[in-house]
Amino acid sequence: MSLEPTTAAEQSRVETPGRSADLDRLTIDTIRTLAIDAVEKANSGHAGAPMALAPVAFTLWDRFLRYDPAAPLWPNRDRFVLSNGHASMLLYALLYLAGVRAVDRDGRVLDRPSISLEDIENFRQLGSPTAGHPEHGLAAGIETTTGPLGQGIGNSVGMAIAARWLAARYNEPGAKLFDYNVYAICSDGDMMEGVGSEAASIAGHLRLANLCWIYDDNEVTIEGHTELAFTENIAERFRGYGWATFTVDDANDCEAFARAVESFLSTDDRPSLIIVKSVIGYGSPHKQGTHKAHSDPLGEEEVKLTKDAYGWPREAQFLVPDGVKSRLSSAVAARGAKLRTDWDEALRKFGEANKASAAELQRMWRGELPSGWDEALPTFPADDKGMATREASGKTLNVVAPRIPWLIGGSADLAPSTKTLIEGEGSFGPDTPGGRNLHFGVREHVMGSIANGLSVSNLRPYVGTFLIFSDYMRPPTRLAAMMELPVVYVFTHDSIGLGQDGPTHQPIEQLPALRAIPHLIVIRPCDANETVEAWRVALAQRHRPTALILSRQALPTLDRAELGPAGDLARGGYILAEAQGGTPEVILIATGSEIPLAMAARAKLQGDGASCRVVSLPSFELFEDQDQAWRDKVLPPDVTARVSVEAAAPLGWDRYVGPKGEIISMHSFGASAPGGAAMQHFGFTADHVVAAARRQIALSKGSRGNS
Amino acid sequence: MSLEPTTAAEQSRVETPGRSADLDRLTIDTIRTLAIDAVEKANSGHAGAPMALAPVAFTLWDRFLRYDPAAPLWPNRDRFVLSNGHASMLLYALLYLAGVRAVDRDGRVLDRPSISLEDIENFRQLGSPTAGHPEHGLAAGIETTTGPLGQGIGNSVGMAIAARWLAARYNEPGAKLFDYNVYAICSDGDMMEGVGSEAASIAGHLRLANLCWIYDDNEVTIEGHTELAFTENIAERFRGYGWATFTVDDANDCEAFARAVESFLSTDDRPSLIIVKSVIGYGSPHKQGTHKAHSDPLGEEEVKLTKDAYGWPREAQFLVPDGVKSRLSSAVAARGAKLRTDWDEALRKFGEANKASAAELQRMWRGELPSGWDEALPTFPADDKGMATREASGKTLNVVAPRIPWLIGGSADLAPSTKTLIEGEGSFGPDTPGGRNLHFGVREHVMGSIANGLSVSNLRPYVGTFLIFSDYMRPPTRLAAMMELPVVYVFTHDSIGLGQDGPTHQPIEQLPALRAIPHLIVIRPCDANETVEAWRVALAQRHRPTALILSRQALPTLDRAELGPAGDLARGGYILAEAQGGTPEVILIATGSEIPLAMAARAKLQGDGASCRVVSLPSFELFEDQDQAWRDKVLPPDVTARVSVEAAAPLGWDRYVGPKGEIISMHSFGASAPGGAAMQHFGFTADHVVAAARRQIALSKGSRGNS
Repeated sequence: MSLEPTTAAEQSRVETPGRSADLDRLTIDTIRTLAIDAVEKANSGHAGAPMALAPVAFTLWDRFLRYDPAAPLWPNRDRFVLSNGHASMLLYALLYLAGVRAVDRDGRVLDRPSISLEDIENFRQLGSPTAGHPEHGLAAGIETTTGPLGQGIGNSVGMAIAARWLAARYNEPGAKLFDYNVYAICSDGDMMEGVGSEAASIAGHLRLANLCWIYDDNEVTIEGHTELAFTENIAERFRGYGWATFTVDDANDCEAFARAVESFLSTDDRPSLIIVKSVIGYGSPHKQGTHKAHSDPLGEEEVKLTKDAYGWPREAQFLVPDGVKSRLSSAVAARGAKLRTDWDEALRKFGEANKASAAELQRMWRGELPSGWDEALPTFPADDKGMATREASGKTLNVVAPRIPWLIGGSADLAPSTKTLIEGEGSFGPDTPGGRNLHFGVREHVMGSIANGLSVSNLRPYVGTFLIFSDYMRPPTRLAAMMELPVVYVFTHDSIGLGQDGPTHQPIEQLPALRAIPHLIVIRPCDANETVEAWRVALAQRHRPTALILSRQALPTLDRAELGPAGDLARGGYILAEAQGGTPEVILIATGSEIPLAMAARAKLQGDGASCRVVSLPSFELFEDQDQAWRDKVLPPDVTARVSVEAAAPLGWDRYVGPKGEIISMHSFGASAPGGAAMQHFGFTADHVVAAARRQIALSKGSRGNS
Repeated sequence: MSLEPTTAAEQSRVETPGRSADLDRLTIDTIRTLAIDAVEKANSGHAGAPMALAPVAFTLWDRFLRYDPAAPLWPNRDRFVLSNGHASMLLYALLYLAGVRAVDRDGRVLDRPSISLEDIENFRQLGSPTAGHPEHGLAAGIETTTGPLGQGIGNSVGMAIAARWLAARYNEPGAKLFDYNVYAICSDGDMMEGVGSEAASIAGHLRLANLCWIYDDNEVTIEGHTELAFTENIAERFRGYGWATFTVDDANDCEAFARAVESFLSTDDRPSLIIVKSVIGYGSPHKQGTHKAHSDPLGEEEVKLTKDAYGWPREAQFLVPDGVKSRLSSAVAARGAKLRTDWDEALRKFGEANKASAAELQRMWRGELPSGWDEALPTFPADDKGMATREASGKTLNVVAPRIPWLIGGSADLAPSTKTLIEGEGSFGPDTPGGRNLHFGVREHVMGSIANGLSVSNLRPYVGTFLIFSDYMRPPTRLAAMMELPVVYVFTHDSIGLGQDGPTHQPIEQLPALRAIPHLIVIRPCDANETVEAWRVALAQRHRPTALILSRQALPTLDRAELGPAGDLARGGYILAEAQGGTPEVILIATGSEIPLAMAARAKLQGDGASCRVVSLPSFELFEDQDQAWRDKVLPPDVTARVSVEAAAPLGWDRYVGPKGEIISMHSFGASAPGGAAMQHFGFTADHVVAAARRQIALSKGSRGNS
């Protein structure tokens, strides 16, 4: 694309790219005008932040980022996260100008750009990789999905933890395979969201010196000046967290920003926050520095005036002047290709000396698990006393953990209760970066966000808390599903059965609320062996996260000799106990801790001569993935007498009981009482189930009589 | 209850309550031992924090709290919030020892204690007010429900805002009706949770000098020492937020703590944080200062050793020595009764001079709205172009706001988008405490928590954000439902129809996830007039919160002359457009922005001779509250040909379409594209609805033929 200057001033300004400073400025203004033109054409988006941050992002990529555009998945690349995802055009312009290449779903580099100029022209259009907010998976170079504020910086902590853990496990004196840094640009919103605070607190605690946040301090939010709602002293707050802080007084001062990055690079005992004072919508004569520059297009006239201010051809659209395209790509590639080539050689040598470790890395990078990882999974003997499914989960975790070295995780200060500790492994801490047990503190939200950061770094994370607190971490849970990350959530204390902690701690709506999230697999196993199978399903996933819903209280370990196999959990629902004679008059459908109740009810019913099937339905999602034949086998359409039993809100159960069935569920919040008393109080008794089943049988006989 | 000392040492220690210091110590140890005994008897609970904090809480109540135990709802009482709700026995012991009286549901004071000793003996049992975590409504003096960490301190900010707003509106030079302070005790968990950070940030910004947090710095969390995950400098962080900070080196040093409270009281330009170094499980020889003292009973032997350490009769259970009961109650009552009586007199005088304002206050305290509040609600004329329901919501809000002076609210930095600004009213800010427009910043979570604090202070709060970010504030939303607070949530940008911001901003699962919350009313109106009715329903609630689900995009304002009345929205679902001939072959059921689609499909179907009813089902909850006759009228059981259309996850719709119906819904995340294109891409087109309806008609005719 050639340049067509329209005025003498523009000509002198644009046509002399010989001097480096001029070409730099030209490249920076190209980023700005691409953002302006893309937003204008889409009639939607946020140009203000890219206009402000272009010099900062350019300088970072130009001088510092260790990144090979020809190998966007190079494992030791520096990570660049745009936490203020609404500034997406900044990222797209960078990926385009740096010449980052596309990769396919299997990680193979393709002979085309990750983001083309045409893609930028199609900003925010259906099917274009240039979505409104950066979406991981749509284009190489988008390290994570951002947009919901605070998530990107939360992810960045996970990436920085991954870097330190990988270094601790694989680096050797002669081979520093992992020493990458993580940079995240963030905004006022990231600083205000609680998850951002949690992220800063734990990053400071962990002394993640490989983490650098660049805070766009533009003093403008959507409702107006930050004076309206946000006047704290950020630097002081971050020093309280244990961060180093540096301030750049003018976002256009590339040298000052470069010095700040140098300061980060020479800080080896804590994360760094670079506060950059910027002017949102920089260059727009009527909107810069105001909230009008946050979103919405500038408008045709203001675009011209802004381009005038840049000394840019006012009519040009998506203009990339000569020299600009190669300016950034050559600088990044020159540094990155060398680093990456040297690293490839280091990896080769490492592999010669450490065949097993090298194979392990390759497997991890492919998203696979070690072969035989599930061979030692336990089978628990039948036992009426049984054990809590959280207990079975802990045991299962401890069987698989030694076989999957890069399975790491932990809990939001509840490990003794969630049973999420890997025994015999150390804790990940500032001085023990090889530990596999993570301690998130009472910070569920960033725990979820860190899990996503670990997962995009190819580790296999699991995280745990009480099911009730899944509410605190829904935003990253949905992003894991959206990014197709196989995170495992261990949610224990799964119903009123937890007892005396009371309504604030007893989940009611959390189960349906999780089932509503697309792509997320939710599994509520009914005994120790279903719990083992649930872990098997969860770890086998490559593109879906899984939530394990586990009991606090002990549940009988069922005698599978007489019942359906626990392995059928993988099909979501199965006939646990067939009706006598094989033709059920009524079907009881239950999950988790309500299965024993259904089984007790079945015993009474059959004792009275009523044939009754019990279906275990631990996972709606897995069941819906089965073919019609399986689903009809488990729940025959002609058996309409059905009762479901689940100590949670009823939403979703009509699908399985049908219009005439009964749903035994929770219609209110719980109560503080011993678990058994609470269950009884809310009608979760065998007698209640039996009565419902009898009503169903009568109703179904009546309607058959009528038809 | 009399004291029975068992050893000489105990005798000398316990039987001489003459000296004030001794009696104080005795009272403090009574709080401790009541907590110990209650947890031991329940075999469940948390005694460690009450044991540590007893001197702090005692000193606060004894010397400072302006509270009349005989009038627990006195509007100008100081508020005491126990944010670390797991320490509930601390609160119950205080309420018991202070002699706080019970009130009934209408606010009448009863002639019995709010918490009796028997209640304490029934700690954590079914039906007892002494639930595992403090529950608002179960006993007077429980100002708010706490337990999920961070919520109590979040609520406290709302209470402090309410105090300042009420003072600005009603105080007069001669009558300081409102000048109360808000105290909140909090723990490490509160400090780590993001919502706590959001609360601290906005409280500092607002310079809420009437707010005092007392942080229990015990260096112990469930997983172990805070060294594991929490090493930040809290005081420095809070100074960054703009707080005054004071440190008390020993929780047992009542004089030092009293000096810190005096410092808070003399600080008039910012909130105060008092950091109290404490020993969890103080007095327990083997468990104090360790995470073993956090939860679980101490155990019989350790209880004895702990009582020995206190100089307490080791075998005594629930012992309240002579003099202790009157010690705290007389001190609190002496101060509180005088203050309250003076205040009653001041209110009387105020009422003489300001009849209207006094009546307004009485009405507010009764939880009622001004008469005629809804008389001027608008009716929007039919209009094909129409308007977004968020737009209609903003207009409605601005009609009712002048008539309900204590309706206050705002948005998490999205007011221009959520249309939640009350025009002509100022912003609530540090120097403008009478403003009714709140600016929460990008802090959805604490916005929800502040709303709860405002609501328990008798104001009528509304809060707004994009529907997608309802995920960030689910914990306080469920607590509003649990506490029966009539908060109004304005959730806009309610589907993929929002368009180009893409999947990170397009709600899919949020609608069913909200519907799953017990007691919450969820309403998704289909046009401007249903939006008006939705506000009418929401504001008329006294015990249920309501979530309004509103579109970003314009929707036609329906011509009600030919259709069912918008007022039927109050019934949750109604026949919007009857089938020609009155007997539908198929029923289309939709909500919100999908109603126009259903109407277009109906036109096509009826044009082709198929009779088709359209049901508007804006609220599942309100519909389920109707009697069977209404529900059967709207959705006749014998019309099984049904299609639902809603651009959200399908969970819950089987209930209305039945086993043979079709659900047109979202089965994945959305896409970044103009709203119309996104709708089309995901199958939300009239043609698609028509095709589904035809399949349904054919199926239903087929099955009728077979039967």
